[in-house]
Amino acid sequence: MTASSRGRGRPGYDAESLLCIAVEVFNERGYDGTSMEDLARRLGITKSAIYHHVSSKQELLRRAVDRALDGLDVIAEETSSKVEPAIARLEHLVRGSVQVLVDRLPYVTLLLRVHGNSPVERRALHRRRQFDRLVADLVKEAEGDGAIRPDIDPAATARLLFGMVNSIVEWYRPGGPADPARLADSVCTVAFDGLRVRRAG
Amino acid sequence: MTASSRGRGRPGYDAESLLCIAVEVFNERGYDGTSMEDLARRLGITKSAIYHHVSSKQELLRRAVDRALDGLDVIAEETSSKVEPAIARLEHLVRGSVQVLVDRLPYVTLLLRVHGNSPVERRALHRRRQFDRLVADLVKEAEGDGAIRPDIDPAATARLLFGMVNSIVEWYRPGGPADPARLADSVCTVAFDGLRVRRAG
Repeated sequence: MTASSRGRGRPGYDAESLLCIAVEVFNERGYDGTSMEDLARRLGITKSAIYHHVSSKQELLRRAVDRALDGLDVIAEETSSKVEPAIARLEHLVRGSVQVLVDRLPYVTLLLRVHGNSPVERRALHRRRQFDRLVADLVKEAEGDGAIRPDIDPAATARLLFGMVNSIVEWYRPGGPADPARLADSVCTVAFDGLRVRRAG
Repeated sequence: MTASSRGRGRPGYDAESLLCIAVEVFNERGYDGTSMEDLARRLGITKSAIYHHVSSKQELLRRAVDRALDGLDVIAEETSSKVEPAIARLEHLVRGSVQVLVDRLPYVTLLLRVHGNSPVERRALHRRRQFDRLVADLVKEAEGDGAIRPDIDPAATARLLFGMVNSIVEWYRPGGPADPARLADSVCTVAFDGLRVRRAG
């Protein structure tokens, strides 16, 4: 997308860098609270220069949330194609999701704030629900295998698990002290093995 | 507050029910995106009728986030006064926080969205940080006791733990299938003991 659209843009912005800044503004002010005027002001270009790249604010939102959802879909497909016990596939899904979240932080942040007020948002919520269903199915399967404790409702388990994963957007900052791979390890350790030290016997 | 302010209100609203509806609107539209006109329209009263109860939108926000923070402070004080190992105090704090979150759901939801754009918001963030520091200190102390695994950074542990707790606002609905006490149990089970079933030996 970037290369093919570069020729159409004004100097300084291609479709990619415009999307990147738009997402930054959406995350700061809220999508509903951001007008195309606000974007134009931040970019230092005219509204019509923005319309060189995108047909509407909705299209910017669609491109942004698709970037998050496409990343999660890759992990979901990888997970589903694995021939491993459900608990190992679940761990793969958690670990991959942390990686997507870290790699595509502003896009995932925006996705998690979408509330379904427009067709683009409803479609994004629909795709998120499909992902959530995969998580819930894996939890149920792992419970059926006897690999996950049966004393927690699978729906609550799936939600708490990804509640923990998604909460990372609130505090993770690229280049900060938390290394992405260690972070994914920490999430899996807390979720699958718990914080409490177990004593032998 | 409710009883003493009831005499000052218009028929149909006292300070309490006005706050309750205002928080509902703030959570729907965002605090910044809500004007006093929006509130007046939703309440079906004039702006000046709102000013009978509160001096400003900021005051509504302050009362709302204080309701969440005061609840958390009670749990924090209880926790700090307990003479128990740090891990037991941490569990008490997690369990109590889930209860406050469930009991004061709209107020906690609003608190978690506050971003520090005004003195009221900055004060709320300051109080949240004090609470977070208590969590981090307990994690560190429990790790020092050898009760919590040392292979996860205490700061990340504290954040993941309360990331999971706070994520409950995204899906918990009063009167729904999730019972608050069972929910607190589930959070503690996942966080402290992990999902994986351990086999003897």
